[in-house]
Amino acid sequence: MSVVSLPEEHWAAALADVEGVQPVVWDMTGAPPRDDIELVVPPYMSNPNRLARLAGLPKLRAVQLVTAGFEHALQYLPDGVVLANGRGIHDTSTAELAVGLAIAAQRGIPQAARAQEHGEWLRLAGLPSLADRKALIVGYGSIGLEIAKRLVPMEVSITAVASRARAGDDIVDTVHGIDELPALLPAHDVVFLILPLTDATRHLVDADFLARMPPNALLVNVARGGVVDTDALVEACASGRVRAALDVTDPEPLPGDHPLWRTDGVLITPHIGGASTAFEPRALRLLRRELARFAADEPLQNVVATGPQ
Amino acid sequence: MSVVSLPEEHWAAALADVEGVQPVVWDMTGAPPRDDIELVVPPYMSNPNRLARLAGLPKLRAVQLVTAGFEHALQYLPDGVVLANGRGIHDTSTAELAVGLAIAAQRGIPQAARAQEHGEWLRLAGLPSLADRKALIVGYGSIGLEIAKRLVPMEVSITAVASRARAGDDIVDTVHGIDELPALLPAHDVVFLILPLTDATRHLVDADFLARMPPNALLVNVARGGVVDTDALVEACASGRVRAALDVTDPEPLPGDHPLWRTDGVLITPHIGGASTAFEPRALRLLRRELARFAADEPLQNVVATGPQ
Repeated sequence: MSVVSLPEEHWAAALADVEGVQPVVWDMTGAPPRDDIELVVPPYMSNPNRLARLAGLPKLRAVQLVTAGFEHALQYLPDGVVLANGRGIHDTSTAELAVGLAIAAQRGIPQAARAQEHGEWLRLAGLPSLADRKALIVGYGSIGLEIAKRLVPMEVSITAVASRARAGDDIVDTVHGIDELPALLPAHDVVFLILPLTDATRHLVDADFLARMPPNALLVNVARGGVVDTDALVEACASGRVRAALDVTDPEPLPGDHPLWRTDGVLITPHIGGASTAFEPRALRLLRRELARFAADEPLQNVVATGPQ
Repeated sequence: MSVVSLPEEHWAAALADVEGVQPVVWDMTGAPPRDDIELVVPPYMSNPNRLARLAGLPKLRAVQLVTAGFEHALQYLPDGVVLANGRGIHDTSTAELAVGLAIAAQRGIPQAARAQEHGEWLRLAGLPSLADRKALIVGYGSIGLEIAKRLVPMEVSITAVASRARAGDDIVDTVHGIDELPALLPAHDVVFLILPLTDATRHLVDADFLARMPPNALLVNVARGGVVDTDALVEACASGRVRAALDVTDPEPLPGDHPLWRTDGVLITPHIGGASTAFEPRALRLLRRELARFAADEPLQNVVATGPQ
């Protein structure tokens, strides 16, 4: 029996039937409940410094995150311990929000919601549908693909961009390389950002990127705020040239007096892409799969790093 | 050459190449430009009493509407003249809004849009996704089917209801009859209304219907306001039992002081289901098809009535 820690009582209960593992509850706020824990599932969205407690577990062999991001955990990873991430858990929730933001921004839902507060029946005829638009999905990993799948029946034409050009799939003929972006932008009405934030992608969306988008085009960001140069975005939207629907911002949370809040044509949701009820069942499905592999001495599926030897 | 009138200059221009027809522009606000018009396309969403001018056209054989509703035209239809409606033109736009309203209401987009006005980063974690929900589509005609197609990749389970039970399709195993509604409601989290308003469907959604919906369920109305008993809906939402996203209301437009505007858990858009840029290209495609049939002496595809002989 491998002892594994889970951050919540009902997760431990839900996974108690996985063969070969003995779940214990530990949210990492205090000392571990026992010192023979072999795999730790840290709590979702908690202070990373709790991970310092991993060092006190002599039998630790693996850390399984329930987030896609894992960079915060690297510095706490003990020698030889593998780190696996929660890749895939948030795909459904994030893709759903991305499409919802796009429809909302196109069809006037934010304006209607605000007018509702003072009982005003707006005239909103003739706004652009999402249907018939040309969408560019920048970042064609698992979430980008989920966005594309949802756009297919919406009569949207889809172009995919990834870090490197590659062959297409059932949805797109080809996946373009990111170097083709400048040439692609002018022909696309809606740009979905769902690429990782790295040194190479920081401020990918700058004044030049925004200037290449056609008039009244919509930028949807469900990636990370830092992919966009916020000042350039405020300027491009304030002038009425383009619009934006953002689930992530830079800085984040956005301070109350930041000009982005009140820039025309900008819709902001408070980083809720992954944070819906879609999260938990998918987290539990991934944990069930990974714990079973762990108990069977198979490598975890989502390994992203191993602690320095 | 059959002379046909179109309500807008650029529609006439767009259809000038249809063989066998001679388009003329007439928005019906004044006398017809010539008296040999054989088919009239009245303007979209104009005062129905303009249709009284149809009586002054001795060669008139057909009236082609660009709305699905046609009841307003019946009383103006001269003897022997056929009336065809715009069935299908609004499917894309309406289905898109229905799905957008559902995602927006589930994921907190209206709350975020309102909080944005005062620079507030809300805590909205844990709201219900549309994914994993059980959706009931009440009215499984062409728009109901378009809603269903959009829900398929969203990981929503779909149940369809029509006026009469019938066999299913690629999406649903069976289409339930409307008499099964009371039994179906308790098992469904999101109810889409897209059925015609008739004497039989007026106030279909009453206190009993709403009481059968599970706690926190969402009602999405893109049909007609009169399908819902507004007083009963205000009561059910104000109590926090259920929520609603409404593109149509009764009365409509909703007066500024109506309690529905400020009822908790209610999102209202001002009847914009069909009124997006998706309308015009689909209207022109339908007109192109119908005019070609007319010129070839074939019956129009969307005939709904013939004037009394």
